[in-house]
Amino acid sequence: MTFSTNHIHNFSHVQNPSFLQACMRQASDHTPVWLMRQAGRYLPEYRDTRAKAGSFMGLATNTDYATEVTLQPLARYKLDAAILFSDILTIPDAMGLGLSFALGEGPKFAHNVRDEAAVAKLAVPDMDKLRYVFDAVSSIRKALTQADGRGSVPLIGFSGSPWTLACYMVEGAGSDDYRHVKTLMYSRPDLMHRMLAINADSVALYLNTQIEAGAQAVMIFDSWGGVLADGAFQEFSLAYTKRVLAQLKRSHDGVVIPRIVFTKGGALWLDEMGGLDCDVLGLDWTANLAKARALVGGNAGTVGKALQGNIDPNVLFATPAVIQTEVTKVLNSFGQPHTDKTTTGATHIFNLGHGISQFTPPENVAILVDAVHAHSKAQRLAQK
Amino acid sequence: MTFSTNHIHNFSHVQNPSFLQACMRQASDHTPVWLMRQAGRYLPEYRDTRAKAGSFMGLATNTDYATEVTLQPLARYKLDAAILFSDILTIPDAMGLGLSFALGEGPKFAHNVRDEAAVAKLAVPDMDKLRYVFDAVSSIRKALTQADGRGSVPLIGFSGSPWTLACYMVEGAGSDDYRHVKTLMYSRPDLMHRMLAINADSVALYLNTQIEAGAQAVMIFDSWGGVLADGAFQEFSLAYTKRVLAQLKRSHDGVVIPRIVFTKGGALWLDEMGGLDCDVLGLDWTANLAKARALVGGNAGTVGKALQGNIDPNVLFATPAVIQTEVTKVLNSFGQPHTDKTTTGATHIFNLGHGISQFTPPENVAILVDAVHAHSKAQRLAQK
Repeated sequence: MTFSTNHIHNFSHVQNPSFLQACMRQASDHTPVWLMRQAGRYLPEYRDTRAKAGSFMGLATNTDYATEVTLQPLARYKLDAAILFSDILTIPDAMGLGLSFALGEGPKFAHNVRDEAAVAKLAVPDMDKLRYVFDAVSSIRKALTQADGRGSVPLIGFSGSPWTLACYMVEGAGSDDYRHVKTLMYSRPDLMHRMLAINADSVALYLNTQIEAGAQAVMIFDSWGGVLADGAFQEFSLAYTKRVLAQLKRSHDGVVIPRIVFTKGGALWLDEMGGLDCDVLGLDWTANLAKARALVGGNAGTVGKALQGNIDPNVLFATPAVIQTEVTKVLNSFGQPHTDKTTTGATHIFNLGHGISQFTPPENVAILVDAVHAHSKAQRLAQK
Repeated sequence: MTFSTNHIHNFSHVQNPSFLQACMRQASDHTPVWLMRQAGRYLPEYRDTRAKAGSFMGLATNTDYATEVTLQPLARYKLDAAILFSDILTIPDAMGLGLSFALGEGPKFAHNVRDEAAVAKLAVPDMDKLRYVFDAVSSIRKALTQADGRGSVPLIGFSGSPWTLACYMVEGAGSDDYRHVKTLMYSRPDLMHRMLAINADSVALYLNTQIEAGAQAVMIFDSWGGVLADGAFQEFSLAYTKRVLAQLKRSHDGVVIPRIVFTKGGALWLDEMGGLDCDVLGLDWTANLAKARALVGGNAGTVGKALQGNIDPNVLFATPAVIQTEVTKVLNSFGQPHTDKTTTGATHIFNLGHGISQFTPPENVAILVDAVHAHSKAQRLAQK
């Protein structure tokens, strides 16, 4: 199924369609907001569930727990979308690399991939090994369904990007210099390309299976694209994001599935990312939304990308008044949102520029979410 | 003393003037190259000297040792500039915050600055407390002087930027989220501005005293400017870099002193940095040199900035052939260098996009330096 630039989708199967509308550059009655890592350690109820689950992977692989924690932030805040509770690194785990998380630490793999023999062993994993993810997606969708049969808010599925998966697969963990993955990339680009092709095909199959299970939008997290040199980014990250996008389902059950790409540190390459076959581009806080909108946002009736982002998560450590001021700054930086319901135009999905900090005071998140709704409604009223 | 855009400086007091020529957008017979952190842990002779000194600060505060390690990379490689061996954090140490380095770890302060009382105690430090730095500068200049009385290569002095100093002063150490410094910045911008003004005045006095002691160029390392949100970067980093530049000596003993500004992650703001009152802008590997040159490099006879950078230090982990290819890519990305000796034009100083890794094989540095010289001479010959 293909959709023209100006196709106006009917999202009445969702009670609050603002997120899906904004993804497809359609007018919505307020600027939708959700937060990367909105289900997570900053919430005491999350920490309680995680303690019951025993470990992060114990939490992610249990359908009931994964459903429970996905819904926790929605119970507290007027968020406009839910995002599957999972990790960006489930694919390499399913490839047999052995993912684990020590309490308070980042991801760690039991095996890493640094030579030809290790690359030769890689293959697109059997999706049965990721069944826990698809089961969670179905369970969350069911839980989001209201008495009237409509979903309350849409559910976003996601994966790490091929390059970001490769970073962890080669380093075996997080890194502050990406020495091993870049050594492999510069020394043996052939091996790196082989790994990235397998990763891309895996990510595409994984996201398509999430879509079949009920994900209503999908997001590719290129968390480490921004560590690459100009030239290397295009060759080793962007090209494989394209390879994923080329394989993604555009719709499911007759409903469009918006595709979001977020490269942390990618604002420098926004002009090139504007050419991606996706609907939404995520931006971190270094980007200027007015400039980004001018570059790729598009005008009414023309092609363009919806923009998602980009407040600094550290704003959430400030006072309520400062949070409100900074939210207003970000919304005003994007400028007047598109409001004509008969055509598409430049739209904004409010989010953080990166995942929420585990140290965030939960009450400050309510201030932020409410400020986005209040000010973005005021923007629309001012326009009338 | 002021200099017109087209003033051609005579640098015959230096045997190899290529670095100073390129800084001032003058033609040189090859593209000069030096490496951030070129004196450092990747060199076995450095590790020997550090072992003798007992600690990093023991090394930095001893004139003989500081001179010795500054010269070590020059003995091995055909580098076109020397850079003072020191740390970017000497100023907060002189303010009384107590800088130390545990072996294999980053900088740590005994005291941090997180509230009004701590900020109230800050003042521009007595330069006497930094005498070891100025003594090292004089000693290195003397050591660089040849039998004919000329310097072999010029000596660069440096400091952390006001914002980068503030990051460490508030965090008390390195950070992966800059939560404390950003909390202070968002919650109490008045305190942050007070601290940054003191830092800027300290940096200016410190660099001017290095110039009086013999530094022939000065560089401001804004290592953490790139972690700021758009808007915050301009207000809390760039504005205070400007405050430093406004106070810097433009010349010493009748010789121009080039001023270099490097913001890691700053390529997004290059258009704004093009307006700084400095001679050279440093770039990390995410920047595209051709685009940067078009934006701020200037044409022959017009104003502009020399550009410094920007190869990924991880290239040094690849094979000699790959290192040569990547060096060529970076030089070609900048394009044909300015060669007319009668006027100024777009020039390039080859460097890494960030400090050299401690794990770098020393023999690979020779490959890189020689490749820069060979290919940049070939570029100039091709132009004739």
